[in-house]
Amino acid sequence: MPATTQDGDHSVANKPAPTTDGTMKAVRFHGVCASNKDLRYEDIPEPKCGQGQIKIKPAWCGICGSDLHEYLGGPSICPTSPHPITGEQVPITFGHEFSGVIEELGKGISEKWKVGDRVCVQPIIYDGDCGACQDGLINCCYKNGFVGLSGRICRSAMLRIINTDTSPGWGGGLSDHLVVPEYAVVKIPDNIGLDVAALVEPLAVGWHAVNASPFKPSDSVLVLGGGPIGLAVIQALRARGCKQIIVSEVSQMRKEFAKEFGAHHVLDPTKDDIVAKCRELADGQGVNVSFDAAGVQAGLDQAILALRARGTHVNIAIWEKRCNFFPNDLVFREKTYMAVATYVKGDFEDVISAISDGRLDMCKKMITKRIGLDEVVEEGFKALIKDKDNQVKILVRGSGQI
Amino acid sequence: MPATTQDGDHSVANKPAPTTDGTMKAVRFHGVCASNKDLRYEDIPEPKCGQGQIKIKPAWCGICGSDLHEYLGGPSICPTSPHPITGEQVPITFGHEFSGVIEELGKGISEKWKVGDRVCVQPIIYDGDCGACQDGLINCCYKNGFVGLSGRICRSAMLRIINTDTSPGWGGGLSDHLVVPEYAVVKIPDNIGLDVAALVEPLAVGWHAVNASPFKPSDSVLVLGGGPIGLAVIQALRARGCKQIIVSEVSQMRKEFAKEFGAHHVLDPTKDDIVAKCRELADGQGVNVSFDAAGVQAGLDQAILALRARGTHVNIAIWEKRCNFFPNDLVFREKTYMAVATYVKGDFEDVISAISDGRLDMCKKMITKRIGLDEVVEEGFKALIKDKDNQVKILVRGSGQI
Repeated sequence: MPATTQDGDHSVANKPAPTTDGTMKAVRFHGVCASNKDLRYEDIPEPKCGQGQIKIKPAWCGICGSDLHEYLGGPSICPTSPHPITGEQVPITFGHEFSGVIEELGKGISEKWKVGDRVCVQPIIYDGDCGACQDGLINCCYKNGFVGLSGRICRSAMLRIINTDTSPGWGGGLSDHLVVPEYAVVKIPDNIGLDVAALVEPLAVGWHAVNASPFKPSDSVLVLGGGPIGLAVIQALRARGCKQIIVSEVSQMRKEFAKEFGAHHVLDPTKDDIVAKCRELADGQGVNVSFDAAGVQAGLDQAILALRARGTHVNIAIWEKRCNFFPNDLVFREKTYMAVATYVKGDFEDVISAISDGRLDMCKKMITKRIGLDEVVEEGFKALIKDKDNQVKILVRGSGQI
Repeated sequence: MPATTQDGDHSVANKPAPTTDGTMKAVRFHGVCASNKDLRYEDIPEPKCGQGQIKIKPAWCGICGSDLHEYLGGPSICPTSPHPITGEQVPITFGHEFSGVIEELGKGISEKWKVGDRVCVQPIIYDGDCGACQDGLINCCYKNGFVGLSGRICRSAMLRIINTDTSPGWGGGLSDHLVVPEYAVVKIPDNIGLDVAALVEPLAVGWHAVNASPFKPSDSVLVLGGGPIGLAVIQALRARGCKQIIVSEVSQMRKEFAKEFGAHHVLDPTKDDIVAKCRELADGQGVNVSFDAAGVQAGLDQAILALRARGTHVNIAIWEKRCNFFPNDLVFREKTYMAVATYVKGDFEDVISAISDGRLDMCKKMITKRIGLDEVVEEGFKALIKDKDNQVKILVRGSGQI
């Protein structure tokens, strides 16, 4: 076990020895209680590629707000008892926003795949048998999980090729190798770099939110938050020809990003009257749709009032506590609050097409820092906590560079 | 002024003298602060029928939960400064659920109307010029009001035929006469009694909520509350062939009503586990749609968890305070909270057709008590407060009996 710092962080003070045969490096979250912040760069057994599986060397992996939530206040999404699908529990290898290169194909894999293919991974882990899955809503699976948050995808007990009692925590993109089932793998065309390919996952979150909403190109839209998901929403809206994008953001750097990425107006909720401004900018009535990529009570309050009659508030954010509102503020103008999660079948492919043909042309600018796998705790998580306002997406360099 | 009782109620202790020429009886809400409960049966000038207006003798008028909210905790919807459309303010004549008989036609009224026609009134007061009205959403009008809550409908200053400085509080169904513009009047076919016609308004609220929701006949649905609006929703669902209607209600009499009106299962939130029961009854997943006709936090909490993935909660209730929920409970299953208000163009006509052709065949059973106009305070409002659980709809007899 690596040395433990005084504040409970298990970091890379003692760097583990270089990988030897049969083991590999991985960044695993061991957190058991909120105060632990127990994320370790360590040696774990290298997974074998089983039937129906594809083995991947990650090339680039992003650190997500959900990872940060787990690190700071979790385990929340990460299971602390065996996950109903993966059978794994903490420690879990982090990383669900990643690209990589295929290094091995298991038995029964389609001939369309070959070793060396450049890919990214759609990380939803779903049951397949539950009512939501049967209705085609795999992102709403009643048992769902994520590669990089819930352990490795084992589609059935028969596919578990190594005894999981040892809880190896396989499966996240912050490792030298991982295996995933074929359905999770999405090919990347030659004109998209593997760094940008690691952004497909957060871009798909914004893409899906816009698709799921009642947004029309002639609409005026308010986006709360100019972080990675807010910027993904702005890009998706711009790609769809949105008439007017208004962004509410506090951080100076994120404000500049929002403007550069296509926002027509960038407001500061600490200085501007968001409700009055939205009404003024949108026919005196307010915006048609608001997207919440911030998850803050004050933002929700403003968004509800900034919506016009029959407007829709789309919550994408993961919240840490309950929100509240006055129902009558929605009733008398027939407003709607809808919640969306991750992405559905086709979103990854649509985002990749949009990057490839230039409709999403700003993605690379989201990358504000690149670090090594051994730097994830200090230069990744701790840097994001200290310097959140000046970072959008930190990418971690993996073993699958080509 | 009638005598005032010790608790501040202005009731009918001293019954006003019989109506003389030029005056009429009306029940007006004078409330200025929550403790006042100031509702008076009194003489006010009889309104004259102006250009574009129809004068009606009310036949039956229901007492609504909104009236009760105003009486107990208002003025809230009732204006305390001149209403932007009606120009009126408290005192306001109450009554927005009513039927009646046409007694006079103003200049310029269509030839399709004649004196003696049996009608009901769609009470939405709308501006016509605001963005919502221009979009056809008159129920979301940014200046909206209601006949019986906001004063008389004056579509423009030109139509104000009497100086409103005297604040006569014309316009509610709890009076001997009222004038409304032609657009608000809806004809009742011969096979519908004027008592049932007074129920068209609350029935239209339930009808609209079902129409506005994503409800499909094959759905399982949860209805919170078995009061007038809950029963209207149940009837609308039954008329649309809903596969499974589950009702959550505490009152024994309302439970029996819900069952009689078409609920397949009636649960008691003080005894049953609503969430577990809904899942059990609905494919192990939960209901597709929930309708809130109660406006209580505990009900909202249950409904959100009782919904299946992509389920929709439809709030019809007017709330007295803020509600709260944990957004993540909606996020990971992509649930939606939508709010609906009153009705839209065509709902009154559709409800009337459904009553006339027998699709809505239980309406008359909603009437649990009939009283006189001079009994409104004691036998109407106070009875509803004391005996809410044993009442559904109290109808007030008007001068337009035929």
